[in-house]
Amino acid sequence: MMALKKEDLIAIAEAKKQTHVTCRPTVPALEEILFQPFHLLDHGFVRVVDYMGDDNAIVQAARVSYGTGTTRLRDDRGLLRYLMRHRHTTPFEMCEIKFHMKLPIFVARQMIRHRTANVNEYSGRYSVLDKEFYIPMPEHLGVQSKSNRQGRGEALPQDQAEEVLRMLKHDAEQCYAHYQKFLGESEEVATDTNHFPLSRELARMNLTLNYYTEWYWKVDLHNLLHFLLLRMDPHAQYEIRVYAELMGSLVEKWVPFVWEAFCDYRRFSADFSRQEMEVLRMMLQGKKPDLKTMGLSQREQDEFFRKIHGSE
Amino acid sequence: MMALKKEDLIAIAEAKKQTHVTCRPTVPALEEILFQPFHLLDHGFVRVVDYMGDDNAIVQAARVSYGTGTTRLRDDRGLLRYLMRHRHTTPFEMCEIKFHMKLPIFVARQMIRHRTANVNEYSGRYSVLDKEFYIPMPEHLGVQSKSNRQGRGEALPQDQAEEVLRMLKHDAEQCYAHYQKFLGESEEVATDTNHFPLSRELARMNLTLNYYTEWYWKVDLHNLLHFLLLRMDPHAQYEIRVYAELMGSLVEKWVPFVWEAFCDYRRFSADFSRQEMEVLRMMLQGKKPDLKTMGLSQREQDEFFRKIHGSE
Amino acid sequence: MMALKKEDLIAIAEAKKQTHVTCRPTVPALEEILFQPFHLLDHGFVRVVDYMGDDNAIVQAARVSYGTGTTRLRDDRGLLRYLMRHRHTTPFEMCEIKFHMKLPIFVARQMIRHRTANVNEYSGRYSVLDKEFYIPMPEHLGVQSKSNRQGRGEALPQDQAEEVLRMLKHDAEQCYAHYQKFLGESEEVATDTNHFPLSRELARMNLTLNYYTEWYWKVDLHNLLHFLLLRMDPHAQYEIRVYAELMGSLVEKWVPFVWEAFCDYRRFSADFSRQEMEVLRMMLQGKKPDLKTMGLSQREQDEFFRKIHGSE
Amino acid sequence: MMALKKEDLIAIAEAKKQTHVTCRPTVPALEEILFQPFHLLDHGFVRVVDYMGDDNAIVQAARVSYGTGTTRLRDDRGLLRYLMRHRHTTPFEMCEIKFHMKLPIFVARQMIRHRTANVNEYSGRYSVLDKEFYIPMPEHLGVQSKSNRQGRGEALPQDQAEEVLRMLKHDAEQCYAHYQKFLGESEEVATDTNHFPLSRELARMNLTLNYYTEWYWKVDLHNLLHFLLLRMDPHAQYEIRVYAELMGSLVEKWVPFVWEAFCDYRRFSADFSRQEMEVLRMMLQGKKPDLKTMGLSQREQDEFFRKIHGSE
Repeated sequence: MMALKKEDLIAIAEAKKQTHVTCRPTVPALEEILFQPFHLLDHGFVRVVDYMGDDNAIVQAARVSYGTGTTRLRDDRGLLRYLMRHRHTTPFEMCEIKFHMKLPIFVARQMIRHRTANVNEYSGRYSVLDKEFYIPMPEHLGVQSKSNRQGRGEALPQDQAEEVLRMLKHDAEQCYAHYQKFLGESEEVATDTNHFPLSRELARMNLTLNYYTEWYWKVDLHNLLHFLLLRMDPHAQYEIRVYAELMGSLVEKWVPFVWEAFCDYRRFSADFSRQEMEVLRMMLQGKKPDLKTMGLSQREQDEFFRKIHGSE
Repeated sequence: MMALKKEDLIAIAEAKKQTHVTCRPTVPALEEILFQPFHLLDHGFVRVVDYMGDDNAIVQAARVSYGTGTTRLRDDRGLLRYLMRHRHTTPFEMCEIKFHMKLPIFVARQMIRHRTANVNEYSGRYSVLDKEFYIPMPEHLGVQSKSNRQGRGEALPQDQAEEVLRMLKHDAEQCYAHYQKFLGESEEVATDTNHFPLSRELARMNLTLNYYTEWYWKVDLHNLLHFLLLRMDPHAQYEIRVYAELMGSLVEKWVPFVWEAFCDYRRFSADFSRQEMEVLRMMLQGKKPDLKTMGLSQREQDEFFRKIHGSE
Repeated sequence: MMALKKEDLIAIAEAKKQTHVTCRPTVPALEEILFQPFHLLDHGFVRVVDYMGDDNAIVQAARVSYGTGTTRLRDDRGLLRYLMRHRHTTPFEMCEIKFHMKLPIFVARQMIRHRTANVNEYSGRYSVLDKEFYIPMPEHLGVQSKSNRQGRGEALPQDQAEEVLRMLKHDAEQCYAHYQKFLGESEEVATDTNHFPLSRELARMNLTLNYYTEWYWKVDLHNLLHFLLLRMDPHAQYEIRVYAELMGSLVEKWVPFVWEAFCDYRRFSADFSRQEMEVLRMMLQGKKPDLKTMGLSQREQDEFFRKIHGSE
Repeated sequence: MMALKKEDLIAIAEAKKQTHVTCRPTVPALEEILFQPFHLLDHGFVRVVDYMGDDNAIVQAARVSYGTGTTRLRDDRGLLRYLMRHRHTTPFEMCEIKFHMKLPIFVARQMIRHRTANVNEYSGRYSVLDKEFYIPMPEHLGVQSKSNRQGRGEALPQDQAEEVLRMLKHDAEQCYAHYQKFLGESEEVATDTNHFPLSRELARMNLTLNYYTEWYWKVDLHNLLHFLLLRMDPHAQYEIRVYAELMGSLVEKWVPFVWEAFCDYRRFSADFSRQEMEVLRMMLQGKKPDLKTMGLSQREQDEFFRKIHGSE
């Protein structure tokens, strides 16, 4: 696996050596892994290339809003937890992080829907895409879930999995071979002076959605947490979830108090509807309410008990 | 060509028949073509499914900003031209339009970069994509431009074009056949009770980027004009340009005064840099300035003369 | 009270009479009150001047995303509730509404923080502001809350309230008299040919924050609901809450199914943190957990019991 | 003048002393003035409290988009100029800067309209505003312009200017005295145990629009340049222009190549409409076109000649 080219790795090593002196808020735990690629899936990576702010920068911004009174009342961790609990989101926008990522196009298509990020993507109009495509591990080839129209269930039987992987690989390779031929870069035509290269912007349409793309992706902490909440969720597609989980672990290094508060008040919190609250109050009084007559659909009843039993 | 299914066409005909009475600003020229699909490329379409506001709605919003004085000074057309000329953009945000579109994925990937639109895209996690992929007309198979790294030049020679089209078609069909097999929908496996369907969210990764997707795309007029400016430009990729041009023709029906002002002050205007302005002033005085010593690169000099001669 | 001028009221009556025929989704309950000003505070108003979409338009957009399978499974109301419950927010962005509002500047300053709206505000650089300022009703003159740093408690004693109102009124009037004098519009100087009018953009700085401004404010339904969630909350300042509540009642007319789902799943729902969920599970098992040792601060304990007892 | 309190100045001096080691892109010229307040108007200030990226970070992001080919073709400065000239805006979004500012409320109201910034403003609900209000210098008290409805002309005569300043000051002071009295903080009532403090969220409405507020304001470079383009313009109100000009000078320290390109291609460039281009082409051929018959209004003709003569 070599998602980064040799010259990239050399450039990264060089950049790590060049240290500067700054007065800006600096997070040693993040500096340590700065620029360093973390690998995921078969050719993907995520690396932090820059960041602005830390736990304390949020506290400082909040204190500008709330004025002097705040100073005395709470320590930093307490204030961050208060802000998270009460959805005071603007101070979290005061931190910013920039990632360099390599990811399959079908994952990029989900991720780009988070419109608040700044993005610079590798352009297939300007340059030729590398021959790198995603082939899942057999254990991730889940069958179509019947209960959940967008989900996957257990893994395919081995023989079927092998066949799927063989076909995925074959199609990706054949599409790339033709892509190269279109561009006049395959061996067959490279020396043929009568062969004209098709424009890159057209040739790329022959690639499959599991081809990798790469981009710089920059976002503020508030919007990043919102992205992580949705994409670390067990219902998110596995392939984007691994990216979200890795990015989450980097956020934890960066702003540990925020991360703790996020886990307590957003990620592992549970929301109860007006009807569910009525049910809950009756149950706490020792009663056995009939959920259906109280307005919960069958699906909501299942969701309610999963929340109550913490089994989700 | 049947980008819309028969039941969709029936539903559209039904919707056209159901008229309502409203006090809202209404544009007869747009009502006439409302819901109606305009076809482009081989399977694509664009149709307007809703709109808010008209030329006059912008005037009204501007008059709220500028107060009573404005009323007397200008007629509506003049005020719209003034707003466009002086980049007073907020009144144009007071109009909104919603399109339903079918477009190749590689075009959708360019279009989604315009982050100000609201989008609901067909989800390959929930549903199976139709077997519809884009195959260019031979005359659009341009060779890679040498002068412009992102552009295309003249069409490929006929025999090469035919080969490209054959391969594009072959790969798209083979990928789809496997996609169907993965899903357990191909004839071969449909009756095989030992065959498990792969989850849709995974199977779709085997499709090529010229497959069609569809979406609802809603945007305000200011941001739509910005999109059109970039994508109706001769440097935009042909396949997105045809969408932009069609949408432009619909905007012209909707807000004719705005469209006229947009063409005069944005689309067919020219911008001259500080250095170019110095050159221009000398030329108007009958002098023959040396562009290189005045700081224009070779590329800028070419651009300058294209602007002056209106040949772009 | 005459927040709208006579000519405005005539124009509104005219507009109501001019009906058009449209194929667009139309909501009779909203058409009925279209353009009509609803008055609040002493000089404020809110009126709907345009809208796009209805309950069904959201359903339609969702069905594009989820494809054919959805059609069979749910009725419209059920689908809208599902979307709201699972925070599938993009279909709600497919509806848009435009308000014309008059509101005190200090309320406008809170409202403008919701950055997703399109706004055209009356400009004090172009035009002279009217002599309209907000004077609260005595019963709304709450004392500074001690428990809540941003809140207000019971009303001031009558004599003190009267003094506050007298001073508020006096200062607003005096500031306006000087504003007019600056502009050369007061009687004293209007005929004095040696008196030069100060520019409007400067003169306005002498007005107090309770002066009214007006604007067009346009937003999509998803972002509007988010605004309403925050500003209909009992902790929101009374003066913005009355605007949010009125706008909420208009949303209810516009998209009744969405409104019902919003109330059940967002407005009257309750959120429990990871720690609170643990407490809750123990309580449901009949145990009496010690909240402090389980990590809840005193403030969180109070909040927990308010949620459980539904007294908030 | 003491816009920052003594404890703030001490904290700033402390922060400047605490240096850290970082691998992040660092700009020595900006580090030098980091945290340092630059004063403007009578009580305002601007200081940079954090930043992300530099000229080179934009180049790097652009090279990700355009791939390897770009590397060889251009030096960094040339690439930045190319990006600016051709409105390739996304790489400029890869830099971010955070300001701490103190500014009059009427200036803040203009600035908040730039919706792409992240903002944390001092809250008058939580804390008491300081007694700091803006009083213009006599030479900035311009008369209302007749030619430009939103502008100001020459300064008022001295006696009139003195009267305006006296009234501005008087009103601001009186409003503040009452504000303090409302809050129970004036000497008169501070010891009166029967006096109840009015809630801060209400009391603040008595302050005039020239009172100072403060905020953290964070924005990416692309959107910052757009803000500067509009607000450094000679038609912008003087009081916001001084902020924009100061911020511009800080941007110049931060990203000098970008700043140069911005000045050449945006700030001092000129835009010619379709009709103006026709006129220009005729003039370059030595003809004397009649501007009126070619479609230019009187106002456009004046604008055209100002552009041509560079006198604007």
